[in-house]
Formats: sequence, C-alpha cells, structure tokens
Amino acid sequence: MKLRELGEFGLIDRIAARASRNSGVKIGIGDDAAVIEPTEGLVTLITTDMLVEGVHFDLAFCDPVSLGRKSLAVNLSDIAAMGGVPRHFLLSLAVPHHISVEFLDGFMVGMLEMGERFGVSLIGGDTSSSGKGVIISVTVIGEQSPDLVVTRRGALPGDLICVTGTLGDSALGLSLLKRGIRDGLAVSRHLDPTPRVREGARLAEARLPSAMIDISDGLLADLGHILDLSGVGARLLLDKLPLSADYIERHSIISEDIFSFPLSGGEDYELLFTTPPGKIATVQSVLMECGTGCSVIGEIAVAGLNLFTASGVEYTPEERGYNHFS
Amino acid sequence: MKLRELGEFGLIDRIAARASRNSGVKIGIGDDAAVIEPTEGLVTLITTDMLVEGVHFDLAFCDPVSLGRKSLAVNLSDIAAMGGVPRHFLLSLAVPHHISVEFLDGFMVGMLEMGERFGVSLIGGDTSSSGKGVIISVTVIGEQSPDLVVTRRGALPGDLICVTGTLGDSALGLSLLKRGIRDGLAVSRHLDPTPRVREGARLAEARLPSAMIDISDGLLADLGHILDLSGVGARLLLDKLPLSADYIERHSIISEDIFSFPLSGGEDYELLFTTPPGKIATVQSVLMECGTGCSVIGEIAVAGLNLFTASGVEYTPEERGYNHFS
Repeated sequence: MKLRELGEFGLIDRIAARASRNSGVKIGIGDDAAVIEPTEGLVTLITTDMLVEGVHFDLAFCDPVSLGRKSLAVNLSDIAAMGGVPRHFLLSLAVPHHISVEFLDGFMVGMLEMGERFGVSLIGGDTSSSGKGVIISVTVIGEQSPDLVVTRRGALPGDLICVTGTLGDSALGLSLLKRGIRDGLAVSRHLDPTPRVREGARLAEARLPSAMIDISDGLLADLGHILDLSGVGARLLLDKLPLSADYIERHSIISEDIFSFPLSGGEDYELLFTTPPGKIATVQSVLMECGTGCSVIGEIAVAGLNLFTASGVEYTPEERGYNHFS
Repeated sequence: MKLRELGEFGLIDRIAARASRNSGVKIGIGDDAAVIEPTEGLVTLITTDMLVEGVHFDLAFCDPVSLGRKSLAVNLSDIAAMGGVPRHFLLSLAVPHHISVEFLDGFMVGMLEMGERFGVSLIGGDTSSSGKGVIISVTVIGEQSPDLVVTRRGALPGDLICVTGTLGDSALGLSLLKRGIRDGLAVSRHLDPTPRVREGARLAEARLPSAMIDISDGLLADLGHILDLSGVGARLLLDKLPLSADYIERHSIISEDIFSFPLSGGEDYELLFTTPPGKIATVQSVLMECGTGCSVIGEIAVAGLNLFTASGVEYTPEERGYNHFS
C-alpha cells in the first residue's frame, strides 16, 4: 500500500494503535502535546538525535526493522551515558511519497520492539512528507535521582578509563557493507547496535563512574569531550583496546592499521567512563551481572593525550573522529 | 564563512555561547542529554515538530531570522494549545554543506529571540549534515498544573466555539509569496506567526476552555479533531469568521471564495477552543488583557458539522485541510 492511500492521519492512527503506554503518561499520542507526570524527587533527562537518509543510513544496506531499532537505540544510548533510566520517546518522521506503508510498518515494529525491550513508550511526535529521503528525529525522556546523574566533567588524574563491549566493529561493518559484504558481527553491530541502557543506570546507581559518555563519534573524539570538560589528559594503552574476534579476523579487508577503527570509528554505542582505581572491582562485577564485558584501556593524566603500543612506543593516530561538516 | 571552516563542534559552541539558561536547567547544551528539574506538583508537556525545506518552507521566500522564529513558534503553539507554560527547547538541525555560517547565525538569532520573548531556553539538540535541504526538528518542554491542562476531548453540546485573532492570513500569504508578492500582513503572518502562548496559559489558568487546539492544518481539520475526540458535532457561522482587513482586501487576487482559506488554510497558529456560554464574558476579558481578539464562530452540537452563511444557507467547503500524504 502507498502512503497516499493511508493518509497522514491514517498513518498516525496506525502508529498509535501499536504503541503501549508506560506508567506516568497522562496523555500520549493524539493531542497537541504529550503530558507526563515526573516521578517525585527525580530530574528529567532529555536527548534528541536526527537520522538523515544518505548521511546516517543507506536504505540499500539496512532493512526497515533494524533502522527502527537503531533510530531509538542511538537516543537510548545518550540517556544511558548520563546514568539515566529512559522512560518515553517522541518520533518525528518525514518520508517521501514513494515509501511504502510496508516499509513504515517494519520501521515501527523495530522501533516499538526496541522501546519495549527497555521499557520506553512512544508518547507523541510528528509526521510529514519529505521532498527527498527519509528523515527520522527521536527525542527520549528519562529520569534519575539528581545526585546519581553522571556528566562528562568529573574525571580526575589517576582514574582508570573503562569501556564496555568491543570497539571498531560498527565502522568496520559499514566499510564491509559498502563493499557488498553483509554478514558477520561487525555488520550487525553497525546496523543494529545495542544501547548499554541497563549498564549505564547500574553503574550510576552504584556511584561508580566519575565521568561517562557513549561512543558515537569514535573513542578519541568522545574521550576528548571528557578530557576537555574535566580539564585533564589521558594515557591510552592500545593493546588493551577490546576487539571482537570478527574485527580481528576481518579488519584487514579494509585497513591494515588495526587501531584505526577502534580509535576513530563512530557508532559503537559503547559506554566510555572513568572510575577511581579503588572502584574497578565493583565496576567489573556490576557489568558482569549485566552480561557485558569491561576493559580498562588507560588512565586519566594531568594533561595531554598519549597513546602507547604494547612495546611502550608512542602512537600517533591518523584521525580523531567524525565531524559532520569536515 | 562556510560551515566546513567552522566544523560541527565549532557550530555547537557558537550556538551554546548565545543560549541563555532558565531556572530549572541543571545541565544544558554540551553533555549527552540535558537535565531539568521539574517543578513540584506540575506535569511535563512535550511536543515536537519537524520542518523540512521544500515541504514546510521555501528559502526563496523566507529570511533565516524569520525561519528561526517560526520553527520555535509552531512548537510553542502546541504547548499553548494544551494551556501549558513552555520552559525549554531542543533543536536538531541538518544542513547541506553549502549553507553559510551567516545563514545559521541569522536562524539562531531568530530562534533565540523567540525563545527569550516567551521565557524558553535552548537546552540541547543535535547537528548534522544533510544531503539535500535544511531540516529543522524542535522539541519544546512545558509545564502546567495537572488539573489545568486542556485537551481536545472536553467539548460539550451547547459550548461556544471561539478562535483568537484572524483566520486565513497565512494561507493567503503563502499564495501571494508564490506569485512574487512579498509585502503586507498576510505575508508576514505566514513567515512570522505569533504563537498564542500567554493566551493559552491564561485561558487554562482561569479554567475557561472545555477543549482547545491550535490551528495548524486549517480550521475545519483542527475543529474536526476536537469533534472526533469529544464525540460531538458543530454548527459554524461563516459570517462570524474573523478576517483581517488585508485578507478582505487581497484574497480575491488568489481566490474568489472568501471562506476557502479561513476554513481550510493551515498555519494560522491561532487558538481554537470551546467554552460554556456562561464563561464567554470572562474569556473575552482575559483575551482583551492579552491584547488579542476573540471571535465566537459557532457552537458545539450533538453530531455532524454544518456551516451556514449569513443568510442561513448551508455551505459545503471544497476541502477540509492539509494532509501531508494526499
């Protein structure tokens, strides 16, 4: 079925019929604004991300269900990076006339599935046509106790630098997709990333991270934000970077430099955080309970950013990370 | 200056430097999510709208400052339609590489000016490149006492149907712009609408509207939402439709049917609300204090939607309103 037959309000009704409603939602889809009741004593966290066809995703590579999941996941990841608990989301969607209702159905199935997985409900949004390309804008609202929110500002010299999961998979996956290779972990990590929602909240609730961010632009770029805002430096040990077996096996298809994607590739959506050395054992056990790996990849220094190979030689990366206008 | 020279983080810094911060903002621009402290006892209202170049605006007609103001105004209007008080907003912006920094500066000047006018502060967002066209997504967060929030659902038979300001100007203005006519009230109402923020909150705080919506898709379409959700009908008196002197003078340049734009033209961003007859005098005085006109254009009936001319003849409109996928 074509969108023209369904119409704008038909599309909204179709979406609304599938959306579940969380506690705390007083008015969901279908009025001028959504109305939610904040939990007493908690602060509200809000983040928004826009995904533009041809810039953030390529419909030649990604199926609508994964695209729906990813569009919400990248926003959930931002709430996780503050140690928040995501609760609700809004979706704005602009689509060209040629997009089929089946595509939109798949997209919504993926998005609502990701929402249910993390207890997040769709409460509103906007739909319109687009001259060219699908445009997706998601806003996620979360909550947390004000004293548990983790920012990018608290890293102190001597803190250990930790990262969840593995790095470089998503960037490798995108490069493989561009060469027509569609299988394997790296590819699925690119198309269908898992936001570290439980991990972020559990770490925050145990007061473990001194600073935290999610890796969306690349390790060096995102670590750079923590260093800038905390007014500190860092030493990174390259042999400690967590790499997946798939990454180790296939990175050379794209690049001989094994460190390039883990350092500068974006969209891993892992958590990067700092913690005092005395808390690292608790960090490891909290993340083990979540079923997620944790690697210590360096430590916070007074100033500068230096990278060292296993033999202690200093390494200079080719690029720092993704800049949308470079 | 081109965007390429400024870079993504340069652009964010440039925007952040100009944004003022409201009370209640614990963390604004510059972290993974914004953090706000809800006012005790109030509910949170959230709305989002996306504006796509070529669909919602044409850069041949609109200057960047007005576009910035309008992009926020259309969202403020949704909070006003619930009787809420807007407090904060997020902006996501995707722009092609050829857009100049001067354009973005003008856009931000307009948007932040509109924010300051209504006490609303920018707390976060997202920036990226766009393959084609400027894409703007704004999310506004407001507050209100839960018992004062006005929905589309409360209209009762016998209630009077009221509208602020004048109707049809924006649609006439757009048609005039397409013919190369760039002056006059109708044109400026299209490019630079005024959201009825104070009016919406004042009406709600005096518990006057039984149902309310803002007119974005056209009077008949938006009244239709109130009727559908309230389970009622309406009788409209066409000679009561509030028309500006500019509209009366120039509508015939575009259409001989004087009622077409006021009934079906979108983007007037006036408030459409219902109120029991006993409250109409108070409504008039509240709106007079805001310096805004109020017209009673009909009344809520048990069912159906009938339109009558001054001579009592029933009138059938050509179209109901804007549908993005028709």
